[in-house]
Amino acid sequence: MTLSAIARFGAMRLAPAGASRLNTRARTASSTSGRAVHARQYVQAAIADEVEEEARVTAATPGKKRVVVLGSGWGAISFVKSLEQSAPYDVTLVSPRNYFLYTPLLPGAATGAVEDRSIVESIRRPIASKGYRYFEANALSVDPVRKTVRCRGSDHTFQDEDDLAKSQAWKEFDLEYDYLVTAVGAVPNTFGVPGVQEHCMFFKEIEHAARFRREVNERFECATLPGVPRERIQQLLKFVVIGAGPTGVELAAELYDYVYQDVAKTFPSRLLKDVSIEIIDLQEKILSTYDRRIAEYATEFFQRANIKCILGAAVKEVKDGAVVIADKDGSNQREVPFGIAVWCTGIKLNPFCEKLMDSLPEGAQENKRSLATDKNLRVKGSNGTIFALGDCATIERPRSLAKAEDLYREAARCTPDGDCEIDLSKEGVKKALRLGFDEFPHLEEICARIDEEFPKFTQGSDRMMYPEFRNMLEEVDKGLRALPATAQVAKQQGQYLASFFNESAADDERLQRGVARFDYVHKGSLAYVGKDAAVADIPGFGILKGIAAGLIWKSFETISQVSPRNVLLVAADMLRTKIFGRDISRLS
Amino acid sequence: MTLSAIARFGAMRLAPAGASRLNTRARTASSTSGRAVHARQYVQAAIADEVEEEARVTAATPGKKRVVVLGSGWGAISFVKSLEQSAPYDVTLVSPRNYFLYTPLLPGAATGAVEDRSIVESIRRPIASKGYRYFEANALSVDPVRKTVRCRGSDHTFQDEDDLAKSQAWKEFDLEYDYLVTAVGAVPNTFGVPGVQEHCMFFKEIEHAARFRREVNERFECATLPGVPRERIQQLLKFVVIGAGPTGVELAAELYDYVYQDVAKTFPSRLLKDVSIEIIDLQEKILSTYDRRIAEYATEFFQRANIKCILGAAVKEVKDGAVVIADKDGSNQREVPFGIAVWCTGIKLNPFCEKLMDSLPEGAQENKRSLATDKNLRVKGSNGTIFALGDCATIERPRSLAKAEDLYREAARCTPDGDCEIDLSKEGVKKALRLGFDEFPHLEEICARIDEEFPKFTQGSDRMMYPEFRNMLEEVDKGLRALPATAQVAKQQGQYLASFFNESAADDERLQRGVARFDYVHKGSLAYVGKDAAVADIPGFGILKGIAAGLIWKSFETISQVSPRNVLLVAADMLRTKIFGRDISRLS
Repeated sequence: MTLSAIARFGAMRLAPAGASRLNTRARTASSTSGRAVHARQYVQAAIADEVEEEARVTAATPGKKRVVVLGSGWGAISFVKSLEQSAPYDVTLVSPRNYFLYTPLLPGAATGAVEDRSIVESIRRPIASKGYRYFEANALSVDPVRKTVRCRGSDHTFQDEDDLAKSQAWKEFDLEYDYLVTAVGAVPNTFGVPGVQEHCMFFKEIEHAARFRREVNERFECATLPGVPRERIQQLLKFVVIGAGPTGVELAAELYDYVYQDVAKTFPSRLLKDVSIEIIDLQEKILSTYDRRIAEYATEFFQRANIKCILGAAVKEVKDGAVVIADKDGSNQREVPFGIAVWCTGIKLNPFCEKLMDSLPEGAQENKRSLATDKNLRVKGSNGTIFALGDCATIERPRSLAKAEDLYREAARCTPDGDCEIDLSKEGVKKALRLGFDEFPHLEEICARIDEEFPKFTQGSDRMMYPEFRNMLEEVDKGLRALPATAQVAKQQGQYLASFFNESAADDERLQRGVARFDYVHKGSLAYVGKDAAVADIPGFGILKGIAAGLIWKSFETISQVSPRNVLLVAADMLRTKIFGRDISRLS
Repeated sequence: MTLSAIARFGAMRLAPAGASRLNTRARTASSTSGRAVHARQYVQAAIADEVEEEARVTAATPGKKRVVVLGSGWGAISFVKSLEQSAPYDVTLVSPRNYFLYTPLLPGAATGAVEDRSIVESIRRPIASKGYRYFEANALSVDPVRKTVRCRGSDHTFQDEDDLAKSQAWKEFDLEYDYLVTAVGAVPNTFGVPGVQEHCMFFKEIEHAARFRREVNERFECATLPGVPRERIQQLLKFVVIGAGPTGVELAAELYDYVYQDVAKTFPSRLLKDVSIEIIDLQEKILSTYDRRIAEYATEFFQRANIKCILGAAVKEVKDGAVVIADKDGSNQREVPFGIAVWCTGIKLNPFCEKLMDSLPEGAQENKRSLATDKNLRVKGSNGTIFALGDCATIERPRSLAKAEDLYREAARCTPDGDCEIDLSKEGVKKALRLGFDEFPHLEEICARIDEEFPKFTQGSDRMMYPEFRNMLEEVDKGLRALPATAQVAKQQGQYLASFFNESAADDERLQRGVARFDYVHKGSLAYVGKDAAVADIPGFGILKGIAAGLIWKSFETISQVSPRNVLLVAADMLRTKIFGRDISRLS
């Protein structure tokens, strides 16, 4: 809690306003005991506050724009935290999850290397410290014309059927907005593989990590019982991770540490020979999206550690207790039996975003895989009133090929009669490319490598013809890729959008058009591979592997926590794990 | 983990034994990389270990007595921890809960003042460090003649119906014992009040605390939604605690802190005036079993803090959303509405103990409220082979009245002809009482107060007749009370029993008869009452109240944690709560 928030609450408690009914009682009480009025002071302040509070729920504060933020992940939290408190926005955040989750440490939480409470942060503290509002609710749909979001309060366990029916009326509510910021993330994608939903665990939220931790522990406890047949033990302790991206790899690595650091010391050692950890991926290496050297190192590291890598394998079906896989060409179909299988691969559009797309003018959103935005994160077709960021959004980047002729023409020196050069020198091509930088930022890259690229398209000649120029742009356009669905991207987008909002000072003209586009700065990739080792690819530093990278990974994950509280907790957890080992109790 | 355990595992990893199959592979692997054999070393050790391990499951180690301990609460853990590793016992612990729970901090865990993981300790670490065995299972029944316990592995979430049927066979197993130590605790008692099971939460285990924390948070989130009617908010935020013993009082106090320290800073302040915390008890004071001054202070403290105390009230029924109460005489029946009601009163016999009683010879166990033991904690009727301690046991203390005549006769000086004194002086009475000390330790107390007590029974005379002596003993016997069902008692009993076992060195004669009886030493009572204040009644120090007692409470709860790990975690939690507040995220 910030000083300003303390000041704010201090002021509320001292507020002399309206509540005359209780005032007298509070005064009487305070004459008998100084500390006794604690509760009553709050009650008094609450009444003074009430009228204002209720007014704010329904109407806009004059001079402020109403901003509704959907989500409580990386994008939403970095936007809200970076927004200046003095900026003229009346902010309401809506999310069914009332905390932020530091996702990179989810695999650690799945084995107890860190505790789940250490990597979550209540959304209410940053919200309250800025005087914003938060509702624990799902966004159901958007009316972009009336500019309202329909929301529904989360349904929780304490409500029985009767309650649900009764509460229907007041559980749903509309929020009006001037600007809507959509940061609802994505949902797991099963790619239509049958059986995934029924037989696999997913691995995206804190409850997935908690469930994994509990079930792994249960299996070891069960396998320890005296009469369990050997085949049953082997089945119980067969762990299969599907998807060898950073999440899957880290989960397998953490599980490996858990088994050889903690189970080994606390369970009968005979169990260890029946433990198997396997990871399945379609690619030929684990961490295949990382630098080739990293992927090779990690793959070898896993194989030496006895984590079986089943690579180049497509998952065809998941049955009860077995994953059916085949080679890429569909041949060699076989079964990989499992006790626990975790689906760590792929995300798809959040259903809410589908509804949002449908409510926008036809043709505005053609790609149904995520919300298309312009370079300032404005959702296409929303007239600049809806922004989207993080995993639910893709910045649409125009293809340069469409303007190839214009660029070429402009760079080609023409005579006053209109006769132009029919081929361009290397300098001419650079000029043509530079003319397109503003609209097609991806041209910058090829321009930097022009000495190398130029001859490839001219067959060695030092002049380039228009058809060759077209070929070059076509090739460059192919390299256009959406930003990866990572925490890093979402966080930077949130910060970008907040500074955009801060600078625009609620000026509709600026918010709905302009300013400088979002540029992603890749700060590096890190992944933990087990036994205190990690791999890292940090621009400017290059590739790091092994224990040194492991230290960087640990300190990075510690210091990059979102709040001082979490930094403290994660550091304490890591210290505890080092000294005392993981907590292997099975809490339900 | 202790040094000896490290040595043990070190030794296992170096074991050169049997596993020739894997040996070659391991050596090959180690020639390519030093660290690569990590997993295989264990596998190798595991195979070497396997024969021994499996043998131990079924047969006794020669020269050692097999001790089976049931439970993982205060009694069981203090017994296992105090047992010397060198003592000749082959120990197996059985409990459905694979962790020890530091129960005094359960109310703190219910609001997040401490985290649940900080107050649990895996049972496997102390067990493994001593080379004992643990099975996560329920004890079903005992055959005291064959000396076996029938157990059944816990059924967990990952098993579907099919699995359950298939596993039936190997999930149940018998354990043979030479000595059985029963420390299974008690279960909540509803005293036959209708509706308690359906509409109240209980508060005994960590999952109760977790559920309370989640549901309280849910209710505040729900009450914050914009359209919730005022009456609904009031209903959501009405918390009723039934039972004003230490647990109920601390729960209400922690909830109070949570509301005024955390909710007040993070939720709209208008909610605070609709929060109500009430505590119901049959007695006229809260903490009525404590010293009268403490009870009065605590009751007044609660009333000033705006925690409503509904005292002298009997609970007649619990309905959906309302507790029906009446005055003690049954009059003045009325309803106390609630959002959450927590049942914090009363315990009763664990069903397992009922079964155990039924399997013992008829007449051995007459009091069906708990297992009757002798003064050395041996269960009556078990021929000294079953011990019981903690909440499931009561030490049967013989009434001195039955031997009044013998004692009186022996103290009365008789002539060689057999003529005895017909009345006793004060000294004579003291002599008679002293003769009974061994069998009736409760006589010590009246002997110490004899100057005061003597005249009460002799109507002022300085001689006491036999009928008067009988009256006195009858009066003293009435004061015989079972030890309270507290952590302190169970812990001391566990320590006592372990030192009894240590000293007996597996000698059946000594274990089944003798040694010196268990004596309870009351070390004081402490209870937290909210706002950093506590009450304490410490023998030798007297009564403490307020913030100073609060500090004692906090440091006591910290340093009396069972392991260094928990001391660290609880201290860190308390620090965190002080600096950053509680974590108000709702994890499911």
